[in-house]
Amino acid sequence: MIGSSSPVVLQSMTKVYTTDIDKCVEQVNQLANSGCELVRVAVPTKADTAAFAQIVPKVKVPLIADIHFSPKRALEAIEAGAAKIRLNPGNIKTRADIERIIDAAKANGVAIRIGVNEASIRDLKLGDVPPEKRTKLMVKKMADYIQIFENCGFDQLVLSAKSVDVRRTIEVNRALAEKFDYPLHLGLTHAGLPEDATVPSAVALGVLLAEGIGDTIRVSAAGDPTTETIIAKEILLSLGLQARRKPELIVCPTCGRVQMDVVELAKEVKGYLVDVEKPLRVAVMGCIVNGPGEAADADLAICAGKNKAMFFVGGKKTATVSRGKVISAMLEQIEKLSY
Amino acid sequence: MIGSSSPVVLQSMTKVYTTDIDKCVEQVNQLANSGCELVRVAVPTKADTAAFAQIVPKVKVPLIADIHFSPKRALEAIEAGAAKIRLNPGNIKTRADIERIIDAAKANGVAIRIGVNEASIRDLKLGDVPPEKRTKLMVKKMADYIQIFENCGFDQLVLSAKSVDVRRTIEVNRALAEKFDYPLHLGLTHAGLPEDATVPSAVALGVLLAEGIGDTIRVSAAGDPTTETIIAKEILLSLGLQARRKPELIVCPTCGRVQMDVVELAKEVKGYLVDVEKPLRVAVMGCIVNGPGEAADADLAICAGKNKAMFFVGGKKTATVSRGKVISAMLEQIEKLSY
Repeated sequence: MIGSSSPVVLQSMTKVYTTDIDKCVEQVNQLANSGCELVRVAVPTKADTAAFAQIVPKVKVPLIADIHFSPKRALEAIEAGAAKIRLNPGNIKTRADIERIIDAAKANGVAIRIGVNEASIRDLKLGDVPPEKRTKLMVKKMADYIQIFENCGFDQLVLSAKSVDVRRTIEVNRALAEKFDYPLHLGLTHAGLPEDATVPSAVALGVLLAEGIGDTIRVSAAGDPTTETIIAKEILLSLGLQARRKPELIVCPTCGRVQMDVVELAKEVKGYLVDVEKPLRVAVMGCIVNGPGEAADADLAICAGKNKAMFFVGGKKTATVSRGKVISAMLEQIEKLSY
Repeated sequence: MIGSSSPVVLQSMTKVYTTDIDKCVEQVNQLANSGCELVRVAVPTKADTAAFAQIVPKVKVPLIADIHFSPKRALEAIEAGAAKIRLNPGNIKTRADIERIIDAAKANGVAIRIGVNEASIRDLKLGDVPPEKRTKLMVKKMADYIQIFENCGFDQLVLSAKSVDVRRTIEVNRALAEKFDYPLHLGLTHAGLPEDATVPSAVALGVLLAEGIGDTIRVSAAGDPTTETIIAKEILLSLGLQARRKPELIVCPTCGRVQMDVVELAKEVKGYLVDVEKPLRVAVMGCIVNGPGEAADADLAICAGKNKAMFFVGGKKTATVSRGKVISAMLEQIEKLSY
C-alpha cells in the first residue's frame, strides 16, 4: 500500500539481467531480506517480460516492471503479474497506446508510476530551460500526464519528479505535493557511487520526508542494490518513519581524553549487535566521567576507561568489567533488557 | 566570521592529546587541508592550555578551546590565543567565574559558544522530562544563559542545542532560530561510527540548512576527524552552500542492461578526478542509448557501451574511445573544458 497514511514504502531495483531468472529471483529476495518492500525490474525485451512472469511467483515482494519505450512490454508485464509499472508517458508514442496500457492496468488492479525528469525538460522545442523555470515546467508536464490518466478514469497513480540536483528535487516535490493528491515517489537521479550518493540522498529525501512529503523512496547508488536499501532504511529510521527492530549504536566522537581504542570497541560491539532483535539504543562512550551523563538517553551505555568498562542501564551503573569481558557482559545485560 | 550572511563555517575537533603539540598541530593542519575552517581543541588541564598557546601560532586556522568545568582553563585559553571558547554555563559553578570569563573574552575579542544538551535536561530537579516538553525546556535554559551574557554587555555568542535524536535536533534548532538572533552551531551528539553517523547527520543538518538555519556545523563521528570534515563538506555542497572547487562525479545506478563494469570504471574515473581543480559535473553512465540524454546536465558524460565509451560535452558527442583509453580521453576533454 503506497500513499495516504501508510508507512513510507522502501524500494530498489535489480541490477542483473532479468532473463537470468535464478539470479534475478536471488537478488529480489536479498533485497527483501535487507528491508526492501517493493522491487523494480527492467523489462526491455519480450524475453524479459517472459522471464518476469516466472520471477513474480518466486519472490517475497511485489514487483514493478520498468518500461522504457515499448507499450507492448507494458501490456506483457501487466499480464505477467506486475503489481505496478513505471512509465514515462513522454516515451510512449501514441495516445492510443497509453490508453491501452491504462485499460489493462485498470482491469488487473495494477498501479502506475509516471515520471518527469529534469534532464528531459531540455528536450522541449524551446531549447534549454533556465533553472528558475524548470520546476514550473516539470509540474506542468506532470499535470498534462495526469490529465491523460484521469480522462480514462484511472487514479492508481504514483508521481515522481527527478533531478540530480538536491535543491531542485526538494523544490519540485514540494510543488507536486502542493498541487496533486497522488502519492509521491522520491529519489535523486544518478546519485553516484555509494559513498558519494549517501549524503545528497539523505539531504534531499530527509528534507522532504521530514515535511511529510513522500510515500515511497528509492536511493540510487551504483553497484549492489542492497546498499541502496540500507541507506534508504537509515533515512527512514533517522526520522522515526520506520519502527526500529534492531539496536541503534551511538558512539561518542572520541577525543584526546580516551584511554581505550573506542573505535575498535565500537566496531566489535556493532558486530555482536547484528544478531540482537531488540530496538535498543546502545552507546559506546570513551569516558567514564562524562560518558554516563551524556549517554543518559541510551538504554545501555558502555563507558570505556583504562582497560575496563562501566555499564549503565537507564543512567544507573550495573557493572564494571575488564576490556576482555565487555562483549559477554554486554550480551548478558541486553538479555535482561526489555523494550 | 560566523553568522549573518557569512557562508556556513565548517568545524571539527582534534582527537589527539593536546599536550602532544606536534601531533595536535599536524591534526589541525590536516583538518584545515580537508576543508575545515575552525578547529576545536580540548584543554582539560593546565598543561593543555600551555600546549594550546604553542599550537595557536603553528596552525592555519583559528582554534576553539573546549572548556568542560574549569573557569581557570577558560581564562588561560583566552590568554593563549583562542579565537572562541566553548562553554556550558551550567558547568561553571559561580556567577562570578562566568563574569570573569566574559570580561576576558570581551577584552580579547574572543567569541563564546554556549550550549544545552538534551541529556543535561534530565539533571533538573524535576526528574526526567517527557520528550514533548524537552524542546521548550532546552530553549528556556538557553534563554537563561543568554541573559547572563547580555547582562554583561557581551554579544559575541554562538548558540548550540544538541541531541542524539534527529527530530529533536531539528525541532530545537528551529525554536532557537525563531527566538534568538545569535548564530547557531549545528550538530548531532554522539552520532556513531562514520558509516552510522553519515545519514542521521545529513538528515538533521540538511533539513535545518535547507531552511537557512545554522551558521557553523560539526559532524560528529568516532575516529579520524577528517572524515567528519568530508561528510560536513558533502552536506554543504549538496545544498549549494559551499562553492564547489573539485569535480562532482555522478554515476547511473547501473542495471541489467550495462555492458561494462560501470562501478569499476566510475572508481577509476574518481581516482583521476582527485587532482582536477575544476568544479565540473562528470557523469559515468552505463548505457549509450539512454545515457547521453539522462546525463544532459553533466558538463562531461562518459557513456559506457561494450568495450568502448562515448564522450558527450553539453549533450554533444565529442569522442568514442576503447575502454583502455577512457581515462586519457577524459583528462584531455577536461583540459579543454572551461567552467
